[in-house]
Amino acid sequence: MTVHSGLLRMETEGHGEVVDITEGVRSVLRTSEVQVGVVTVFATGSTVAVTTMEHEPGGVRDLGDLLDRLIPVQPLPGTASDEQEPEYAHNRLNGDSNAHAHLRAAVIGPSESIPVFGGELALGTWQQIVLIDFDDRERSRTVAVHVMS
Amino acid sequence: MTVHSGLLRMETEGHGEVVDITEGVRSVLRTSEVQVGVVTVFATGSTVAVTTMEHEPGGVRDLGDLLDRLIPVQPLPGTASDEQEPEYAHNRLNGDSNAHAHLRAAVIGPSESIPVFGGELALGTWQQIVLIDFDDRERSRTVAVHVMS
Amino acid sequence: MTVHSGLLRMETEGHGEVVDITEGVRSVLRTSEVQVGVVTVFATGSTVAVTTMEHEPGGVRDLGDLLDRLIPVQPLPGTASDEQEPEYAHNRLNGDSNAHAHLRAAVIGPSESIPVFGGELALGTWQQIVLIDFDDRERSRTVAVHVMS
Repeated sequence: MTVHSGLLRMETEGHGEVVDITEGVRSVLRTSEVQVGVVTVFATGSTVAVTTMEHEPGGVRDLGDLLDRLIPVQPLPGTASDEQEPEYAHNRLNGDSNAHAHLRAAVIGPSESIPVFGGELALGTWQQIVLIDFDDRERSRTVAVHVMS
Repeated sequence: MTVHSGLLRMETEGHGEVVDITEGVRSVLRTSEVQVGVVTVFATGSTVAVTTMEHEPGGVRDLGDLLDRLIPVQPLPGTASDEQEPEYAHNRLNGDSNAHAHLRAAVIGPSESIPVFGGELALGTWQQIVLIDFDDRERSRTVAVHVMS
Repeated sequence: MTVHSGLLRMETEGHGEVVDITEGVRSVLRTSEVQVGVVTVFATGSTVAVTTMEHEPGGVRDLGDLLDRLIPVQPLPGTASDEQEPEYAHNRLNGDSNAHAHLRAAVIGPSESIPVFGGELALGTWQQIVLIDFDDRERSRTVAVHVMS
């Protein structure tokens, strides 16, 4: 058996903050000394997601704008409830305020798996691994990083 | 080599039914007796998806509402076809009715990989593994669960 | 350790071209002679994605139409910028033209993991593994295929 595991811990501001976790993942990979294998990155929690993107201010802004439009913080009238006052069912039934965060996280998903060749992640030059915290408050997050070989 | 594999089988109603498969995945994990590893969960079929979410009635309702709006059962006028009567190309060309299910499944995706520490999945307290059956009829589904260590 | 790795190389036209890479993945799997394991498929680059779908002309057309509507090549007025002339921030700040490609790739995601039983991928009959190249020009792409067992 060769599974090397690491945990990344971070404080986020929530509200769609995009955190570049590539160096953290690389650090676990280097410690493992694996040359050929697969790294699985998984964000714990139902209001947080993992994907890859070019982590630069424009793209981060665009992604926030896109999700604000497609999966708004407050649902569009007539689309999300049988109430006159539009409200997500998650918020209404649970006295909560982060239904949009749950939806965004479920659509993007919590995990990615990245192959390793020659001790390096198979990422492109402008491709970073990111955690996106969609919750509507500050959170402490953990990301599980498992290197299999 | 240590790969422990299991198959979950279930009957669904389709139409976006969200099935909590966490206990089924845990059952395969416990049988494997793996303490540190990665579990890969994969839904077979092109109208079904796997993700994680808080499996509670409000969130399930919101996700259905969201997808009905973003990827409607019938395409919006002027957006999906060169026909006067809007119809998805998949339905028109194949005499089919579940084009929306194919689209939803492709966007959400069929697989997630979840790390294991101390014999437990790295899930949050309110984070369940779910299968979503987008097809427009009852289906028998299989989910492959592989535990690697 | 048993990780078998392969690289698929292909030329794409970009503009959302959907390439069926199932046979390429199967070829790596057959060479590995693995009977039970997991195949991880990962597209290198921040404007390209991997998912599964029925690869037929109607579904390919519908997916393109859907993404043109949800994540348009040019942002909708009033939704993506503080400029009068709507423009994605990625394009404006970097003198670029493929912000929509970055957004689509981040939402769909770069990787899928597919279990293997009896030497066969756990795919459905009408479920293919696809690469989607969202960039706005021709690209040479590589897909990393790692078979773990």
